[in-house]
Amino acid sequence: MREFRLIERLKRLIPRSLQGGIPIGDDAGVVSVGGQSFLFTTDVIVEGVDFKLGPGGAPPEQIGRKALAVNLSDLAAMGGRLLAFVAAFGLPKKLAGVWTERLAKGIVGTARQFGVRWVGGDLSRSDRVFVSIALTGEARRPVLRKGARPGDSIYVTGRLGGSLLGRHLTFTPRLREARFLTRRFRPTAMIDISDGFIQDLGHLLQTSRVGAHVELNWIPVSAAALKGGRPDRPRALQAALTDGEDFELLFTLPAGRGGALEKAWRRKFPGVGLTRVGETVRSQAGKIVWWEKGRLLRRLWFREKGFSHF
Amino acid sequence: MREFRLIERLKRLIPRSLQGGIPIGDDAGVVSVGGQSFLFTTDVIVEGVDFKLGPGGAPPEQIGRKALAVNLSDLAAMGGRLLAFVAAFGLPKKLAGVWTERLAKGIVGTARQFGVRWVGGDLSRSDRVFVSIALTGEARRPVLRKGARPGDSIYVTGRLGGSLLGRHLTFTPRLREARFLTRRFRPTAMIDISDGFIQDLGHLLQTSRVGAHVELNWIPVSAAALKGGRPDRPRALQAALTDGEDFELLFTLPAGRGGALEKAWRRKFPGVGLTRVGETVRSQAGKIVWWEKGRLLRRLWFREKGFSHF
Repeated sequence: MREFRLIERLKRLIPRSLQGGIPIGDDAGVVSVGGQSFLFTTDVIVEGVDFKLGPGGAPPEQIGRKALAVNLSDLAAMGGRLLAFVAAFGLPKKLAGVWTERLAKGIVGTARQFGVRWVGGDLSRSDRVFVSIALTGEARRPVLRKGARPGDSIYVTGRLGGSLLGRHLTFTPRLREARFLTRRFRPTAMIDISDGFIQDLGHLLQTSRVGAHVELNWIPVSAAALKGGRPDRPRALQAALTDGEDFELLFTLPAGRGGALEKAWRRKFPGVGLTRVGETVRSQAGKIVWWEKGRLLRRLWFREKGFSHF
Repeated sequence: MREFRLIERLKRLIPRSLQGGIPIGDDAGVVSVGGQSFLFTTDVIVEGVDFKLGPGGAPPEQIGRKALAVNLSDLAAMGGRLLAFVAAFGLPKKLAGVWTERLAKGIVGTARQFGVRWVGGDLSRSDRVFVSIALTGEARRPVLRKGARPGDSIYVTGRLGGSLLGRHLTFTPRLREARFLTRRFRPTAMIDISDGFIQDLGHLLQTSRVGAHVELNWIPVSAAALKGGRPDRPRALQAALTDGEDFELLFTLPAGRGGALEKAWRRKFPGVGLTRVGETVRSQAGKIVWWEKGRLLRRLWFREKGFSHF
């Protein structure tokens, strides 16, 4: 069963009354306590799926960094402020020593950088390494995936594709950018790109019950997407559209706010790209219509949509 | 490196300013937000360590139940009220379907039974199944491991040992009992027995900087501890003292409160044992002196202390 079909089926098993303030399926859950909204998310990274060990693999510090950063990216996508996290490690016996201390150092360094507390954890023996982190935050009004309205502009931060060549271990979660956006411009919907642009835009559109027109020529293709056996533009573009692990923000904004946002963004984040890639439209939920240099495309030249675990 | 030595080393890597309201190492961390204390804990269970698959192994509903219950037990040990949890699953491709739905049903049933919300999760491919849950709760004044004072009585709930013969999958986390204790009798220190009585009592004593005298003849030995190739009393007692996964409460209380507690307990929880097994004393932190039927023992007749992952 494909990952997203399985997630849909699992969601249906959980009575709405047992879920939180918003239905399961956003970048984080919402728990309301005494009038306050808390965000709660979890992301696990697994050896052989999210990182490799051994020669040519990732140093433990970077694995620790990534384990926390993927969670930070989820909280960013909800416009949240960070509170605290817990971390469970699965470890083979032979790594239960200095290697694990280096893993923890990577987490501590990242926690310090972003100002979040590490309040507990668990260790278990496991043939393969995994690091499972759960993170809490606060948000007065979390930005969900569901708020996009027809006619909104669609934006992405940074540049897309080729993350697996290295950036997936070193990326900067877009917390500062997301806080700025949330406070100053209030995106109507937001998600972080973890499973590929097409797939994650699809999630946002589905949840918001809108479609989209996207201009391929506007997609910000990363330098890494142009490497790795994809020297030609169609392949690089495909990588930008389908590669997982970009951890950039994808959000929608009323079209009239775009000019002011772009101007403020350039001043505030001169080193981080911000690109309008299309607009939402009233149509079948989740449907994407592709354009290239102003010409309507009947279909894309590939079928792959993005990453699925199963 | 043994598990608890590794935990000590990892704790030292995390600056105190990055930890929560209490030092890492209790059953849950404490996060203070706007004058409120939140509890935050995580526990992961792993195939081959905490449960087995296949014929003779655990049905997925019980695995789901256990994954949540071990976390509930941690919150119970802090005297907390439950809020919400998130769950990350590691799954081989072939189990990503009906099997995983049954796993989720086990979690949902347990969540419903104890009244806690399931607000989010993550799925990852993994050769071996694991279920990593993180749970939040509230407590006005959490009960920590560190508050025992010399002369306190030491109590355990239920009966100990032999949990791996089945109870580790079906045990009832002592949430009701812990809430009752916390409200009415205020234990000075509390922990749940997950790594074996000797080891967990050791953690409580170490953190409280006291020692203990324990009467072996008072240890409540479970019927299961008497089975499984341990028909004689010394072996059953050893199982009760060292087997992991009891998930009973171990707590200390000023000696003068014992009579009132025992009376109230029998009325409130007639089906759950409560046994005084000894008392704390001013001595080397963590040191346990053993007695048997009023005779001082020079040492125990075995060396094993309890479960260690590494």
